[in-house]
Formats: sequence, C-alpha cells, structure tokens
Amino acid sequence: MALRFAQPTNEAYAYPLTVGHMLDAALATAGDQEIVYRDNIRYTYRDLRHRIGKLASMLAGQGAQEGMTIAMLDWDSHRYLEAYFAIPMMGAVLQTVNVRLSPQQIAYTLQHAQAEILLVHADFLPLVEELLPDLPDVKAVIAMMDFSGDPPPSFTVGEYEDLCAAAAPDYPFADFDENAVATTFHTSGTTGNPKAVLFTHRQLVLHALSNKAPFGVTRARGFGIDDVYMPITPMFHVHAWGMPYIATMLGVKQVYPGRYDPAALLDLRAREGVTFSHCVPTILQMLLGEAEKRGERLNGWMMMVGGSALSTTLFDQARAQGMYVIAGYGMSETSPRISLTRPRRDWDGNENTLADALTTVGVPVPLVAARVVDEQMRDVPADGVSTGELVVRAPWLTPCYVGDEPGSQALWRGGWLHTQDIVSHDGEGFMAVRDRLKDVIKSGGEWISSVALENLIVALPNVAEVSVIGAPDEKWGERPVAIIAPLPGKTVALADVRTVIDDAVSRGELSGYARIDRIETVDSLPKTSVGKIDKKLLRERLTLPSKAAQ
Amino acid sequence: MALRFAQPTNEAYAYPLTVGHMLDAALATAGDQEIVYRDNIRYTYRDLRHRIGKLASMLAGQGAQEGMTIAMLDWDSHRYLEAYFAIPMMGAVLQTVNVRLSPQQIAYTLQHAQAEILLVHADFLPLVEELLPDLPDVKAVIAMMDFSGDPPPSFTVGEYEDLCAAAAPDYPFADFDENAVATTFHTSGTTGNPKAVLFTHRQLVLHALSNKAPFGVTRARGFGIDDVYMPITPMFHVHAWGMPYIATMLGVKQVYPGRYDPAALLDLRAREGVTFSHCVPTILQMLLGEAEKRGERLNGWMMMVGGSALSTTLFDQARAQGMYVIAGYGMSETSPRISLTRPRRDWDGNENTLADALTTVGVPVPLVAARVVDEQMRDVPADGVSTGELVVRAPWLTPCYVGDEPGSQALWRGGWLHTQDIVSHDGEGFMAVRDRLKDVIKSGGEWISSVALENLIVALPNVAEVSVIGAPDEKWGERPVAIIAPLPGKTVALADVRTVIDDAVSRGELSGYARIDRIETVDSLPKTSVGKIDKKLLRERLTLPSKAAQ
Repeated sequence: MALRFAQPTNEAYAYPLTVGHMLDAALATAGDQEIVYRDNIRYTYRDLRHRIGKLASMLAGQGAQEGMTIAMLDWDSHRYLEAYFAIPMMGAVLQTVNVRLSPQQIAYTLQHAQAEILLVHADFLPLVEELLPDLPDVKAVIAMMDFSGDPPPSFTVGEYEDLCAAAAPDYPFADFDENAVATTFHTSGTTGNPKAVLFTHRQLVLHALSNKAPFGVTRARGFGIDDVYMPITPMFHVHAWGMPYIATMLGVKQVYPGRYDPAALLDLRAREGVTFSHCVPTILQMLLGEAEKRGERLNGWMMMVGGSALSTTLFDQARAQGMYVIAGYGMSETSPRISLTRPRRDWDGNENTLADALTTVGVPVPLVAARVVDEQMRDVPADGVSTGELVVRAPWLTPCYVGDEPGSQALWRGGWLHTQDIVSHDGEGFMAVRDRLKDVIKSGGEWISSVALENLIVALPNVAEVSVIGAPDEKWGERPVAIIAPLPGKTVALADVRTVIDDAVSRGELSGYARIDRIETVDSLPKTSVGKIDKKLLRERLTLPSKAAQ
Repeated sequence: MALRFAQPTNEAYAYPLTVGHMLDAALATAGDQEIVYRDNIRYTYRDLRHRIGKLASMLAGQGAQEGMTIAMLDWDSHRYLEAYFAIPMMGAVLQTVNVRLSPQQIAYTLQHAQAEILLVHADFLPLVEELLPDLPDVKAVIAMMDFSGDPPPSFTVGEYEDLCAAAAPDYPFADFDENAVATTFHTSGTTGNPKAVLFTHRQLVLHALSNKAPFGVTRARGFGIDDVYMPITPMFHVHAWGMPYIATMLGVKQVYPGRYDPAALLDLRAREGVTFSHCVPTILQMLLGEAEKRGERLNGWMMMVGGSALSTTLFDQARAQGMYVIAGYGMSETSPRISLTRPRRDWDGNENTLADALTTVGVPVPLVAARVVDEQMRDVPADGVSTGELVVRAPWLTPCYVGDEPGSQALWRGGWLHTQDIVSHDGEGFMAVRDRLKDVIKSGGEWISSVALENLIVALPNVAEVSVIGAPDEKWGERPVAIIAPLPGKTVALADVRTVIDDAVSRGELSGYARIDRIETVDSLPKTSVGKIDKKLLRERLTLPSKAAQ
C-alpha cells in the first residue's frame, strides 16, 4: 500500500490558515493585555475580540458579504486593527487605501478595487464626498469622526463607534478556504496608474509565523510578549510591515498613534512605555531631531528600519540616543518582509561592532528562497561583491498585479518574483542593496552601479549633487553619464571625475566599463514628489536629444 | 466584482509547504555551519544538502517511489537527519520505528505501515534478520554499520555510507502537494497494538514555524543561530519534538549523540559547546547525577523538558548546576508541541522567581486553539483551579489513527483532538496537567484527581508508595480507593488517611466527594515496563472481585 495521502476521520478539524486563527492563542494568553489609541480609547484583547464581532455585524448590516471589497481610509488606529481582522474574517477583502496619493489616484484605486463600502476618517470625508459621483460601486460610506463629537455628514450611513456600539458582538464567523483573498492595496508607482497587489489569508498567516521572531541571535534583543508595540509605518502601507498581525498573534501591548506627529509619537512612547516600532529613515531622522530638541533619550526603543537604505551615520546617531536599530527589506509585492538583519553568527557581544551587520538588509527569513541572478537568471557568486537582481520565492508573495497580465508576467518571469533590486550577498546570507535595476547602467555586458559612481563623485570638492545615468550607446549598449550640480559659483572638471573613478577601477572596486567620458553640468537636479532625484526625467532630458542626434 | 480568489499569473510560483523548503534559508545563511555525529563524522550544511541528494538517489536505486513507506531503525544520528529530509522530499513516507518496543511490536509496526525499504543500525540487524520472514512487503534492507568497519550482512543490499557515496548528489526533487504524508510512527500504547499516527509536509512545516522561537519574553533566553543543538529525546519519538527540523531551518549547529549514554552525552556537550537540548525528567536526573559525579557544572545549557511533569525539585537541582530548564507539552498525536512555558508577562527578571511559571506546561503556542472542557464539552473557567480535559486544534495534529476508525472518531470527538489529559488553566494561558483522564475518579458528577489524593497520602508517615483509583459504585459511579504500600514493618491507618483528606476538604482544596472510605494495603505496587505504577492492573485486581461481590 502506498500511503500518499491520509484519510482523516470525519470530525478531524481541517485547520485553514485564516487570519482569525491568529487570535486563538492571543485570547488564551493575553485576554487582559492592552490596546491603546492616543488619548481616546484603551481596551483589552477580550474587548478587541468583541469589537471585531461588532464591526463584522455592523458591516453585514450594510450589505457586506464574502468577496466584497471594503476600503479603509484612516490613520493608524484601533479601528484599523479591528478592520485587519473583521473584514478578512467575514470573507471580505480589506482594501487599505494610501491616503497620501493624489485625489485622482485615490479615486482610481477605489474604482479599480471596486470597493463597495468605505470606512473614512473625518480628514478624508470632504475628499470622498467629492469623489462619490465617480464611484458607482460604493453602497455605503461609514464616517470615522475620531472621538471629535462632530456628527457624521449626511452622505454617510453613520459614525463608526456609534454603529459598532449598536451591533451584536457574536457575528457567526465561519471557516473558509485559506486561499481566499484577504487584503488588497496599490503600489505607488511613479509611472502610470498604481498597480494593485493582493494577499490571501494563508499568505498573511505564513508571513506572520515566519517573521514573528527572526532576530536570531540568543544574545541579541528580540520581539516578545513584554514588548510594547507602536507602528510608525502607515497601516495602509503593506500591512504596516505585517507587525500588527504579529503583535496580536503574540499578545503584545499595542499603541496606535493616529496621524504621525513627532512630538505626539514621543509623548505616546514615554507614556505607554513603547519598546518596539518600525519606520523609514526619514521618520527616524525626525524622531531623533525631536528627541534631541526635547533633551530626551530614547533608551530601550527598538526600531526596525526599511523602505530605503539605513546609513551607518543614522544608525550611529540612533544608537547614541539609546535606540536599538535594525534594518529589514521587503516591498509591496512581498507582503512585505523577505529579510531582516541580525548580528553575525560570530558576533562578540560588543554593541559597538554591530553596525556593519545591522545596516545591511540582512538575511532571508525562514522559507524565503532568495537568488541573486544576472539577466539570464544565472546565479552570481555569494562573495559580498558580485551583484545581480534579487529574485525570490516565499509563501507570501503577490500572485499577480490585479488585471495587469503583462505586468504580472514580468514580475514572475521564470517562476521567481523579480524585485528589481540589485544586490550583493555573502556566504552568511547577508544582502546589501546596491541599486535599483532600472538605474543600473548596462555597458559592454557588465552591470555598473549608478549608486557606486554617485558616491565617488559626490565626495569631490565643489559637487553639490550628482546623478549618474546610462545614455544609449550603439557600441556598448549604454555608457554612464554624470549629471552634476556644482556648489554655487563653482565648477567641476571631467578630468577630476575621471581621476577618482580611475582610482577606484585600479583598486578593483569598479569595472573598467565604469569609466566616465561625459558629464553634464546643471544648476540643480529635478526631484520627485517624495524628494528623490527624478532619474526618469533626467534620462528623458538627456537621451532624447542624444538619440535624435544619432 | 467580488474579488474572492486571485488569478495568479502563469509563472507565479505556487509555494507548497514541503519539508524541502525548510532548507532554503538555511543553505543561504548557514552553508558552512556544522553538523556533528559523535567522533565519527563532521560536515557542513552544504554537505548535508549533497548527502540528502545522494540518499534520495540511493533509495531510488532500491526502488523507492512516491507514497512508499521507508522505515528507519537507528539511534540519533546524522543519518536520521538526512532521512528526515530526503525521504519526505522524494514524496515517500518516513517511518520512525520505536526501537525500544518488543520484537513482536516492532514487527507489527513494520507490517502495519507496510514498510518496503528498511534502514537498519547494526544493533538491530540481528532482530530484523529474524523478523524478515514475517515482513513480505520489505524489498530491501540497508545496513548502517556505524563506522565500525564491519561488513554489512549478506541479507542486506549494502552499507549506508558506501551506497550513498556511490550515488549522485543531484537527485531531481520535484514539488508536490503539501498534504502528502511525510512521516508516520506508532504510539506506544500500554493496551492492545500500538496505534499509527501520521503527519503531512504542511504539518511539519507549520509545527516548525510556530515553534521556532516561542520563548516569548525579550529578557529570557531564546533559541537562536548561535545555539548548538543536541537532541536527547529519540529521533524516532515524535520527530525528536520537531527540533531537528527547527534547528535545520534556522541554520543552527547540530550534534547527534547516537545511543544515549550519560557520560558520552556530557563529553559531547563539553567538546562541541552544546547549549540547547531536550529530554524527559528521568534523563535530566541521570545527566545531573553524572555531572555531579564528575564535579562538572552545566552552565548555559538550556533544557526543554517534557514527557512527564517537571517537579520544582528537579527544576531547582538543574538550576543549581547551571542549567536553564523549561517545560513543554505535547503528545504523539500532536506532532508534538502544543504549549511551551515561559516567564510570566510581569516577570521581574529575577531568575529565582521563575520556577512557578517554568514548571507548568506553559501556554499554547501561536495557532493553537486550546480549550479545557467537561464531559459535555462545556468550557471550565480559566481560574487556575477548575479542571477539565484539554482539547485542541492546531494545523499540525494527526488527522486519524491509521486504519482505526473507532479510535480516530474518539480522538476527534466534536471536532477537537482529545488529549485525555486533565488540566487547569489561568487567564494568562498557563496550563498545569493534573491527571490523566483515565485516572480521574468520577464520583457524584464531580471529577476527583487521583494525583491530588496521592500527593496528600504519600506525605503521611509510614507510606512508601500509594496509588488512588476509582472503584465502581452503584450510587456514586465511582469512589476513590487508596492502595498503599507502607514502609517495611509499618502500618497506615484509614483514620490517618481520612484526616489528611478532611483537612484538604475543609481548606477548600478538594471536593467533599474526595473523602476516602476504603484503603487496601499491599507490599508493593505493580509497575509498567517504563517504571510507572500500573493502574490498569491495579484496577483489574481491585474492581473485579468487588464487582463479583455486589
């Protein structure tokens, strides 16, 4: 007999990996643990479970049903946490709307996801009222007046807390297929319309399980039930990196800060004893500035940093103010966490030797298969130097861009999710992001990192800003061109740029193809809406005339 | 549009939760980490992956295929670790044979699982040779001569290391359904034939993920990549509590000790720097005794204890010798881990206040839904005192006893797996096992713990041993009877027994139904093969005559 599959007895429970099951152990072990929203409300995990039931009953009363998209426009709140559970647990899809997009983009994402019920914070009610004529799918808008006491506008069906208070806490949640979609949201692409990703129940549970405590070294700080958690990455942005699910699953005290304001965040931290948060480098910089202004130390606050590179300067600054900072890596398409850093295995326990490891994006978390490949999908050596595109497999990656088959095919070319990030990796799995694929210069069959060239050039005297991009070249494919904004009243010579790059080539740090034979001087470099140098615009400006001249 | 299920793009990788995927991150992060088997062999994770490929190729050469049962009879070894991966990764089923069963029982388990290939340590080759005529399914026996240099007997197809050395390392492992059976083994029931449980790939992966680092409190010791792991619970017994899978997934150094011998275990610990192990209380006692004899301290050795209750005496003894001890809970039917203890949330950081929490069986790990219920499946209060049967749901419980539908139905009555353990639990989820269901005395509709009565009586002067069992009673259902073995030349009076129980009743620690009105005096109590008091035999001796007399 071949025993390939079991024959479960009738009553054996076929356990689906659904979001609701993340509450089971939490309710048994942390029923009286606290959840706090600003100065407005404070309740227990037992209350959370009741409120999840009430929210589901209330939404069902508004016509919510399996498979329906229900959109949330809110700052970080207890309401968002309730929606993270209640909406997927009903079999509906939670759309987490990026409220920082333009009104047109917000309208697009709501239309595209075919949201039928909207939960809207008072700050966004005027916008939503304006957009409603263009949103024919919307059946009901629920106002979240945020404890202001203001009445909900008449175009809404009522106020969140009032409607929930009147609803029954015992909504009959049922089991269903773990592959049902739980969440959807749009990536804020800089070109064209935002793209929608989606994640299933199974994916959210597996992301939480694998990422719940991956810090790895017994002597290093972990994330545990005695932590106090406060997100400082928006809950509309990739599930606030999955941490609200993890914190809830473990039964950790949670603090939700509403709209981010550095002073209010520091006040909450001090009052509630926050010990674990996550944010992007810009926010960390702001928090450190505010703390310095107040003469406040941030002892014992662990901060997981992602979104962009964590510089050693910022790392050191944060440590000097008492924080424990680590970097992680992921993207909207990956739910998000793929890797997290940790001390190296042979760490000597000295906190001053941590920066090298902790400012990389770290090592793949369990179940992540990560490869670093060239354009032909051949693996590049794990020598800490060779670079290639990071491609990954994990049980929690978006299976597609919704309604965008060409984009989906490109994302999953060859059966691996393409991150578009150029990284190096080493024998202990530590990865460092070197560049974005679109910014890499492909010359003579080699990849040249624009970031590496920029770092060399910006260190020259008289250089205010620099951007290096690839200009089309008949013979080489592309050739690097440096666009330089000198300091006011100064000039930068091509010869000086060449010297510094030649030196790097002769030290073996750069390929000979990286030599620059053209610079352009400008007054200042164009920026995107979030303050990054707009390489797309630069490339257009630079290459169109060149192409025309060929 | 209802967005119930995603439409993955063609090439999106549908990630199955299969055992092989636990190697992915480990190989990227710990390729040069070590695996050690006694004095015999030492290799890296990279080598492990090659050897897994070779083992699969070798087994395929012997006719192994998907769904086939391949049985392992070995002590804890690198071979066992290789088999944990290679056999399930081929789609075959690994049967981990309990080599401590009687020859008849071993024959039964091999027949019952229809094992077709046997991997047999030299110690068990004579036994297997004897049994072979009764094992018509067996196609090949592979000898594991354990580096002795002895030739494999002629009834085998060859020696493990030799056969593997000649095989190709690049076996083409393919993906398949995560619900395929990965492992099977038999529980050592004291009555009737052993019962077979089984676990799927998905279950083993989820068990590993949920249990990988559940120690919970940031200030307490966890399990990390800088640990050195050595099992001291046999690998044939419920996957050595799942730890070899977890250690491999995290990339931890592993040490396999072969057949357990206290002196050799302590030698290996010292030489390899072992920091994490697990065992039953009896083994812990032996290790402590051996260490004391050698005048050796066991500093920094974390020991997870399960199988039977961890007494505070043993806990304190182990701590006094430098160990960090915690208790866990599970059973063959549960893969095994359901709960693990940890410091309480409000732990003050003082290591001397840990015993209370750490000697309970702890709290449910993530995704475990645990209920404590009466006979009608009604929940009993989480007050730390009320008792009921522990019933559980988790994504890693056996779906049946193979080929035993009545047993399977009883196991899963009401859609919850019945542990047969009587426990209390409290508001923080801490559970304490009070008794086995079969040993509880049901009198006047109340459950009386035989263990509670035994603990009171054994403390009386002149009592050497005592066992309390339920005797059938027409009016009350059952009534407790104490069978007492007095110290040599002494006697114990019923009146003294009554007094101590009356006192406990008046203190509110016991129900009035617990009053004893009958004792039996014997020279000594009958024991099972593993040294436990044989209540089944006692019950037979006691109740049959009583029944006849009624």
